[in-house]
Order: sequence, then structure tokens, then C-alpha cells
Amino acid sequence: MPSQPSKILDTFPNPQPDRDFTIHIRIPEFSCLCPATGQPDFAELHLQYVPDGTCVELKSLKNYIWSYRNEGAYHEAVTNRILGDLVAAVNPRFMRLTADFNVRGGIYTQVVAEHRADGWTPAPRVDLPPPMRD
Amino acid sequence: MPSQPSKILDTFPNPQPDRDFTIHIRIPEFSCLCPATGQPDFAELHLQYVPDGTCVELKSLKNYIWSYRNEGAYHEAVTNRILGDLVAAVNPRFMRLTADFNVRGGIYTQVVAEHRADGWTPAPRVDLPPPMRD
Amino acid sequence: MPSQPSKILDTFPNPQPDRDFTIHIRIPEFSCLCPATGQPDFAELHLQYVPDGTCVELKSLKNYIWSYRNEGAYHEAVTNRILGDLVAAVNPRFMRLTADFNVRGGIYTQVVAEHRADGWTPAPRVDLPPPMRD
Amino acid sequence: MPSQPSKILDTFPNPQPDRDFTIHIRIPEFSCLCPATGQPDFAELHLQYVPDGTCVELKSLKNYIWSYRNEGAYHEAVTNRILGDLVAAVNPRFMRLTADFNVRGGIYTQVVAEHRADGWTPAPRVDLPPPMRD
Amino acid sequence: MPSQPSKILDTFPNPQPDRDFTIHIRIPEFSCLCPATGQPDFAELHLQYVPDGTCVELKSLKNYIWSYRNEGAYHEAVTNRILGDLVAAVNPRFMRLTADFNVRGGIYTQVVAEHRADGWTPAPRVDLPPPMRD
Amino acid sequence: MPSQPSKILDTFPNPQPDRDFTIHIRIPEFSCLCPATGQPDFAELHLQYVPDGTCVELKSLKNYIWSYRNEGAYHEAVTNRILGDLVAAVNPRFMRLTADFNVRGGIYTQVVAEHRADGWTPAPRVDLPPPMRD
Amino acid sequence: MPSQPSKILDTFPNPQPDRDFTIHIRIPEFSCLCPATGQPDFAELHLQYVPDGTCVELKSLKNYIWSYRNEGAYHEAVTNRILGDLVAAVNPRFMRLTADFNVRGGIYTQVVAEHRADGWTPAPRVDLPPPMRD
Amino acid sequence: MPSQPSKILDTFPNPQPDRDFTIHIRIPEFSCLCPATGQPDFAELHLQYVPDGTCVELKSLKNYIWSYRNEGAYHEAVTNRILGDLVAAVNPRFMRLTADFNVRGGIYTQVVAEHRADGWTPAPRVDLPPPMRD
Amino acid sequence: MPSQPSKILDTFPNPQPDRDFTIHIRIPEFSCLCPATGQPDFAELHLQYVPDGTCVELKSLKNYIWSYRNEGAYHEAVTNRILGDLVAAVNPRFMRLTADFNVRGGIYTQVVAEHRADGWTPAPRVDLPPPMRD
Amino acid sequence: MPSQPSKILDTFPNPQPDRDFTIHIRIPEFSCLCPATGQPDFAELHLQYVPDGTCVELKSLKNYIWSYRNEGAYHEAVTNRILGDLVAAVNPRFMRLTADFNVRGGIYTQVVAEHRADGWTPAPRVDLPPPMRD
Repeated sequence: MPSQPSKILDTFPNPQPDRDFTIHIRIPEFSCLCPATGQPDFAELHLQYVPDGTCVELKSLKNYIWSYRNEGAYHEAVTNRILGDLVAAVNPRFMRLTADFNVRGGIYTQVVAEHRADGWTPAPRVDLPPPMRD
Repeated sequence: MPSQPSKILDTFPNPQPDRDFTIHIRIPEFSCLCPATGQPDFAELHLQYVPDGTCVELKSLKNYIWSYRNEGAYHEAVTNRILGDLVAAVNPRFMRLTADFNVRGGIYTQVVAEHRADGWTPAPRVDLPPPMRD
Repeated sequence: MPSQPSKILDTFPNPQPDRDFTIHIRIPEFSCLCPATGQPDFAELHLQYVPDGTCVELKSLKNYIWSYRNEGAYHEAVTNRILGDLVAAVNPRFMRLTADFNVRGGIYTQVVAEHRADGWTPAPRVDLPPPMRD
Repeated sequence: MPSQPSKILDTFPNPQPDRDFTIHIRIPEFSCLCPATGQPDFAELHLQYVPDGTCVELKSLKNYIWSYRNEGAYHEAVTNRILGDLVAAVNPRFMRLTADFNVRGGIYTQVVAEHRADGWTPAPRVDLPPPMRD
Repeated sequence: MPSQPSKILDTFPNPQPDRDFTIHIRIPEFSCLCPATGQPDFAELHLQYVPDGTCVELKSLKNYIWSYRNEGAYHEAVTNRILGDLVAAVNPRFMRLTADFNVRGGIYTQVVAEHRADGWTPAPRVDLPPPMRD
Repeated sequence: MPSQPSKILDTFPNPQPDRDFTIHIRIPEFSCLCPATGQPDFAELHLQYVPDGTCVELKSLKNYIWSYRNEGAYHEAVTNRILGDLVAAVNPRFMRLTADFNVRGGIYTQVVAEHRADGWTPAPRVDLPPPMRD
Repeated sequence: MPSQPSKILDTFPNPQPDRDFTIHIRIPEFSCLCPATGQPDFAELHLQYVPDGTCVELKSLKNYIWSYRNEGAYHEAVTNRILGDLVAAVNPRFMRLTADFNVRGGIYTQVVAEHRADGWTPAPRVDLPPPMRD
Repeated sequence: MPSQPSKILDTFPNPQPDRDFTIHIRIPEFSCLCPATGQPDFAELHLQYVPDGTCVELKSLKNYIWSYRNEGAYHEAVTNRILGDLVAAVNPRFMRLTADFNVRGGIYTQVVAEHRADGWTPAPRVDLPPPMRD
Repeated sequence: MPSQPSKILDTFPNPQPDRDFTIHIRIPEFSCLCPATGQPDFAELHLQYVPDGTCVELKSLKNYIWSYRNEGAYHEAVTNRILGDLVAAVNPRFMRLTADFNVRGGIYTQVVAEHRADGWTPAPRVDLPPPMRD
Repeated sequence: MPSQPSKILDTFPNPQPDRDFTIHIRIPEFSCLCPATGQPDFAELHLQYVPDGTCVELKSLKNYIWSYRNEGAYHEAVTNRILGDLVAAVNPRFMRLTADFNVRGGIYTQVVAEHRADGWTPAPRVDLPPPMRD
């Protein structure tokens, strides 16, 4: 595992802290190693969060993701660990991480974990009709 | 039916038991036999669960699924039985199994069953806007 | 209209009556005749239900659907009638029928009808995040 | 604008007035003229409604839609006007009209308007899991 | 940043102010410059709003969007700023802006922000079943 | 089999006989009966032809296709028979018929047959690059 | 039919007459009237051509297409007529017109016609492997 | 391997032997065992052929395919063997078999083999423009 | 137009000059200005080429493409000019440029131009069957 | 670069050397390092070949691909090198390698290279009509 990840993850001040808004980041190029066999694993990550005081800086996020390339990591554990590191660095109002792993043994695995700040409540959802034509 | 399935299904400790998170496993290669005709049936399974103390180990899951290959099984019954075996082995907070069978007689059948642990309540959902472009 | 449809629709005992679960049946090959012009109409049907004591047997369902082939039927009426026949035969906790008709006069029509047993309440939905990659 | 549209829009009695059910009509061939430039505009309409005493007859609906072909109409106004005409003719429990206009100036516009009869409340939704495979 | 944007954004009176309805505008051609590198950035914008007294005029919206072409702008800040300008010009009951940026450094970013007028509450959603066939 | 099909198939004069051009007709609603079981079969037909003196009239084509609805017909034989009837009625320079049958027994069948008038040679193909974006 | 179409269709000089190159123009908004019923017809046109001395100017092309809006026109004849008008105006080395009409009577029709200048021969095609991933 | 496969594969006389035509059969449910590991393999087969005196009967083809379910078979060998059995049974003018195996070890394999009868030459292809809209 | 483009376009030596091979480069972010209106235009470019002595360096290609951002350019002329600049810089055996412009006035335009070195002939194509399943 | 790759690539005898047939292998998980920046690159490889005396063994192919994980490699050079190694190991009649790299700097690159054994000529292609419906 990369040591001191929160040092690697840089942040910048939230430009609109008076409003809940959502940042969705898709990272198709996550790769680590299977601890059991030493062979490469691949996943697409989706990070969705409502920032509080800070946002994650994208270049440092890319380097943080890259730091797992030669580390052994189980699917369930690594998803929760990345979420934990990001929460520690960004301290968001809400954050969800989805890790969508490539097929192994004919089986596809996806892990989804969430963090919610104490006392934070989302605004009631306004359901707009979805677009019906591309 | 395979005897003693809970012996075949291995587990490992949940790496983050203090948090509700979701594991989604897609298994495109389920096959069994039709009890009426003896001919092969095929389905894609989707297993979604919130682990409590343990998670299902993927290799044993693959072997468990494989053990149905030469067994007769009706769509509705086998979906509920697999869910029951997985609940017995993993004891999850929540589990949903979807079995999507190939067309027979011009008709497509899908069966969906859920288990919820007594007293477990999901956290209120945070509706993030879905991505709008691939 | 076919006479005595509930006799044609066979059932079998629900293998897991202690649990609410869902059966989704897709029938792409419904065809009847337009009562106004006598010309063929085509639709894809979706039947979704939560069984109580019995489930509908698929071969009899195929024959029941086939029995409309040379009958005149309006879109709105025939969707409600098929739902009524299926409810009478299966007596489900919940049932929804969707009929998706082919284009006529440059216009596409879909009819959706539901039945809910008195006193039945669905379990609160557990919203699992949808898979993000195929 | 077409005069006396409610006369053009024919109806027939709802065949199942004791049950809330939904009719979804897709009309890909709406065309009118831009009031500013006189040039043709094109849209795909989606009409979704829960009928009360009557349903809209499809041939008259086609002719009503056709009557806008050489009329000038702004996107926002014409969507609300068509909804108003249909509500006046059909008197539904609920009706939603979506107008999805073709790109103009590199921008795509969609307008969605709804009508709900006084005192009508929809039945609580039963969330069935969506199909996971086509 | 463009000066006095609310002057550029023209409006016209809402043709149906007695009813909440939704306008969805898709703008695939947003482009600005990266403040760090000076290189072009590209995004697709989705604007969804419920108008109150006025609607945004499309040609002025196109010109407003175009005014960012040679301005430096960070993803998170520019999304919130455009929403702010549109809210100031249109004063809607509700407005949501989604900005879907092109990939940079192997990472895709989407920002979603909303504004809700004080005291406005959306009507309870009527969930119509989605169409099941294209 | 329908008797005297060439009488049913009406034609009109080719409006541009001095030029080879292609007419492609897609018919998603072909239905006949399986001679072995008496149950309905369904197919989508594609008719592609280069007319000589006459073109097939669409309403008579629709009625001709409809005339198979209650006839028994094997996949391979009926495709060749329909091609033969159309060639007899239209006398084209070239004609290809594709019949794409719905799944039966887990197997999908498509039959393709062609007719070419004696002495007719197609112009050498000009390969234009296909569009690369929708 | 519009009178003197070649006057409506403006052209500009080919900027690279020493090289065969291809222009592909997609026009999703063609509409005319059915001569038999007077009702609107709709088609998507694809124009592909190798210019010689001139290219067609897009605004005049849009107006030319628009001029058919209230004219009666049969599918096969109008496709050949538009091709003829464009050939007369542009005098290309090669031109292909595809007209893809909306469904009528459950049947989809597409007409494709080509013109090739006397003595023109396309360069032998260089078959590049198509991209395998989007 | 199944013994005497050509006895299992029934045929029926070609209904149009005076014309080359093509039969395309898609079989999504092929399964055999990996000779190395004993675990199940899955493939989708495509059989395309130009019949001479006989066609393959579909029910016997289904049973023949089914007979591999518990046999060990390598991808490359089994594709060629099935083609050989079908050629021996049907004696076609031309036959192509494509076997599209499910992913193993992160790698997808497809094998394509063809047989052509001595002296048979296909008619020169008539290239019709492909449809441009679905 | 950018001055001295061939100076901007850097190259590197072809690593395998003894073999014809193909490089396909997709550039979704081309933007220039319309010379008539001064408004932005957008296109996706596809560059396909068989290198001879040199290949184009990607970073300089990105900067070259970027240099058109504030230049006026007509669709047909700019496509041929970019091809000319690339041919001058890289001197390839074969090169094809496709420019796929965004919709304007309801019309989509794509321009395709090719260059072939004197005396170069492509190897005869080996047609491999395309994959049939994703 | 991995040393002695032809030692890593195992082969097995072609089970049907008397017939030209095609093996298509898709490898979505190729990863190497950018020699300029040291950052990871990702590609999907497609290997298509007509075997002569031997076929490539899949497990050794997986390990060979994996051996590039921590090696620096330029797109154009590495594609040609992998093709060279595979040709040396398998000695095929024909082989094509496609490498489809992930986006870098807003630009997508794909490299395609082929090898053909001296004196080998493919059989003339039999063009079967492609399936028209999924």
C-alpha cells in the first residue's frame, strides 16, 4: 500500500462552499496486483462527492491512483481504503466510490462504498423527467 | 441439487464491517438442466449484497455455481434456493439475487429474490444525478 | 376473445411463499387483429408479478397468448383483459402488465396496468447503486 | 394555431375506468414553423396519461398533430398549448407531455409539462427491479 | 470572465406561469481555456429549469456560452458561475446545471449544481413506468 | 400458400428506368405457422432490389405478406417462394430477400436468397468512406 | 415540385479540384406530402459526392430541401428527382443520394440512387482496418 | 467426443437446389468442458452455409450441439471438428463456422473455419448500400 | 491560417520502415471559426496513414490542431489544407483525413480526403471475418 | 523490453493444418509505461492469425503480455515488436495485430500491423450477407 496517501492527495478550496453541488470523476485506468497470484487486476473507478471546504486536485488524484500499480490489493479492501484516504484528504459532505473490476474466473465484481459527514442531510431531490431521446 | 452447499461456499472476513457497502457480482455462465425435458438451461446471475461479518470467496462461488450443471432445477425454485444457500453461508445484512434465463418457447423469464437481516435498515439514499454522457 | 381463459392458464405452487419475490416474463410475440380494419397488430408484453400461492406455468401462458392471434382487440381493452385473466388465474400479491404495440399511423402506443392484492404492501425498497459498466 | 382543437380530438370510453392505468403514446413526426424565421421545426412528442372517463382516439390525434404543420409556434408555448387541448378533450386523471425538439443553433431543447386532476393521488409506486439484460 | 453576463442573457415571458413545467436545454459545444496550461477545454452542458416569470432566450444563451471561448476557467468554479448568471437572469423556481468535461489525464469530470427558489416545493412526482422498448 | 400471389402484388412503372437504383424495404411483421407444430412463427423481412420496368406497390406488398399469416411454411422454402413471387410480379434487374426468423429451440435462423436478371451486371461499386460518427 | 431548382441551389468553387475527395451531407429533416393521401411524409437524406468544379452551398441546399414541404412526392420518384437537380447544379464526378423514409403501414422504405460522370473512375480503394473500439 | 455424429445430424431436401442461397444459424448456447481443468467452457456458434442437396434439420442440430456438454474439447480443435461433422452430414456448396468463446484469463478467443466444395464458385457479389438508419 | 505549419509538426523516425503498417489517430476536439459568421465550428478528425520514413509526433499534432482555434476556415478547404500540411511534414505512403463537423442549420457535413505516394500500392487485403460478438 | 520473448511464448500443434482457418484473440488488458513520462499506458490488443504448424498457447500469451507491464514502450514500436515476437514463435501463414491505446492529450491512437508468409495467398473471400438483426 502507498505510505502517507493523504500527503499525496492535494486539494484546493471549494469555489462555492455555500451550495451543495456534486463532482463526478470517472477513472478508467486503475490497476493493482492480485495478492493471491501476483497477476495484474484492472478496474474502472467512479468517485462522486459533495465537497465541503476543499476539492481534490486532479493531477494528484491521478498520481495517487497510479501508486497502486505494483501493490497487492483485494477488491473489497482496496475500495474501502481508497474511499478512506479520499475522505481523510477532502473531508467531504458526502462521497461515494464505485470500483468496477474486470472479469476474473468468468465473474464480474463491483464494490460500492459511501461516506456521509455527521449531521449532513441532502436536500430533497427534485425529480426532473429524464431526456427521452439522445 | 448439490448436497451441503454451505460447505462449498467459503467466506473471508469483511474488511470494513463498520460501514454498509455493496458488492455486486455478475455471473454470466450459470447452467442447469430442465427437470421436465432434461435439456440444458442457461442464465445470467446478478448477486448484490451488503456484507456483515463475512464476504463470499469468489473461487468457491464459481465452484458452487458450477455444481448445478447437471442438476435439474425449475427457474423460480432454483433462484430462491441459491439465495438461501448464500444467505446461510454469508449471513449478510442484505442480499438480492437476480436470475435472467435464456429464452424458452419464445418467452424470457427473470426471477428476483431478496433477503434482509432482521433489524437492518438501509441508510437513506443520496440521489446523485446520473452521468449524462458515456 | 378466447372463452374460459382461466381454464387455459395453468399454475403450479409457489416454491417460496414465505418471501416476496418477483417474476418478470417478456413475451415478444403477441399478435391480434385490429377490430376496425381486421389487419394484424403486434406487441411485446412484459408481465411482472409477486406470486402468492401459485405461479403461472409457461407453456399454458404461451398458448393463452397465442389464442388472441385471430381475435379482434383494441390496445387499451386487451391489455386490461389479459391482466384480469392472469390475476384471476394466479391470484398474485402484485402484478403489472405492459403491452408495447408496434407503430400504427406513425404513432407508438404502450399500455401499462397494475393489480395489487388488498392489504399487500411492498417491502421498503433497498436502492442498490446500479452497475456503471456493462 | 388550429381553431377548435377539442372538436378535432375524438375520444372513446375508457374500457377499465375502475383502475388507474397508463397509456404512453410516442409521436416522432411533429412539425411546425418557427414564428421568428418561418422555417420548419421538428419534434418528437411523448404523451403519457392515466385516463378517467375517456381515451384519445389515435387517428384524430394524428390529424390534430398534423394541423400544426403550417402554424408558427414557440417551443415552450406550443407544448403547453397541446397539453391544454388534450386535457380539455380527454379530461384525464393525470397527463404529461414531453416535446423533444431537433437541434437549432447547436442547442437541443426539450419541454415537459404535466396536468393533474384535482384530488387525484397516484397509488404508491411498487418498485420492481429493472431487467438487467436485454 | 465575461463582464456583465446578465446583460447578455435575454429573456422572454413564461407563456404558462400558472403551471410548473420543465425546460431541458443540451449544449454540446461549450469550450473555455485551462487556467493552468492555457490549452482548450471542452464540455457538454445540460441546463434543466422550472421557469417562473421568464424563460431564457436561446440565441442570447448561445452567445453567452460562446463568450467563455477564450477565458480561463476551472471546472468546478465555471459550472457554479454559469448557474449563478442564469439564476440572476431568469430567476427560476428551480434550475440544475450539469457540465460534462472531456477527458484530461485519463480522468473524466462532471460537475452538477442546483438552485432552488426560497419557498418553492416541487409537486410530488408521479412515477410513470418507463418505456421498455425503443 | 396464397393462391395466385402475382395477382395480389400490384406494381407501378419505374419512374427512372434509365438508371440502376436500389429500393430497400424492411418488413418487421411477417408471421406464418410452423407446419410441424401449427404454432406461430415470426420473421423480419428485408427486400432489396434494382427495378427494371416496374416497382412493387407497398399496400399490395403489405397484403401479400399478410396472406401468409395462417399458412404453414418452412423457413427455407417460404423465403425462396416469396422471392419467386416478387420476381414474377416485378421482374427486377436484381433482387435479394432476407428473412430473419425469431429464436426457436435456442437457435436463430436467417435465410437469404437472390435473383439476378440474365445479362444484368451491376456498375462497379464506388466505395465511399462510411460515416465515423453518428 | 419546386420550379427551377437549379436556380435555388447555389454553388461555390471546389477548393481542391486537383484531388478526388468526398463530401457527405446528412439531412435528417426532409418532409413532403404523400400524393395519394395528402398526409406528411418524412425522410432522412444522405448526400455523398466527389466534387468537380463546384460544391453545393449549404444554406441554399437547406432551402431547396425545405421547398418540398408542401409538395406531393412519391418515394422513388422524389429521390431520383433530387439527385437529378443536384447533379444539374453541381456537376459532380460522382454523387449518391440515399432517402430513408419513416415507416408507413408497418413497412420501412429506403431509396438509393447514384450518378457517375462519364469517364470518371474512382481511385482503387485503400482498405484501412476499421477501428475496433469506440 | 460424441460417437457417430453424422447419424445424429438429420437433414431434409433443399427446397430450392437450382439457386445458391444462404442459411445463417446462430446458436448462443454451446457448452463443453476444458480438457485441462475440467471446468465448463461456453461459446456462441454461427453457422453459415449454401446448401446443395440437403439442409440440416434444426432439432437434430440442437441435440448434436448438446452432445458436447460433458465432453472435453479445445477451442481450435472442436471448431474444426464440428465443421467437419456438419460438412459430412450436409455436403454443402459452402459452409463457415464461427465459434466465439467466453473470456478466460482475461482473453477472448474466436475461431472461424470454412469449407468449400470442389469446383463451386460463388456468384459475383452485388454490393447493395447498407441501410443508414435503424 | 497558422503560418509555417510544417515547422510546428514534429516527426520521429518510423520504427519499422520495412513493413507497411497503419496508424489511426482520432482527434475529437478540433475547433475553428466560421468565416461567414465568426462563430465557433467543431469537428472530430480521423487521421489514418501508412508511414514511410517518419511518423507524426502527437504533442506537436495536438498543438497544430489547436492553432486553428481562432482562425476562420471553411469545411471543405480546411480539411484539404490540414491533409496537405500533414503530407508535407510526414511524407507518408498513404494518408486519409476525415473531418466530421457538428450540425449547422439542421445539416451534418463530413469531408474525407486522401493522399497516396507516387508508385505506392497497398498489399492485397486479407479479409478476416469480423468479430460477431462484443 | 522482455528478453527472449520467443522462449516465453509456448505453442501447440495446429489441429487442422490442412485447412486455412482464423483465430481471433482479444486482449483488453495490455499495459506498459510511457518512455517519455514514465506513466502507465493502456491498450486493447486484437490478434488475428491463420496458423500453419502451430498455434499460440493462451496462458503463455497472457504471461508474455503481462511482461510489458513495467517496460517503457512507444505505441508504434511496441505494436511492431509484439507482432515480430509472435511471428517468430508461431510462424503463421498470416497474422495481424491491432493495438488500440487509451486517450492521451485528447487524442486516441490505434496501430495495426500485418505479416504474411512468403508465397501464401488467401482463398478468395466468400461474401455472405451480414446478419441484419441482433
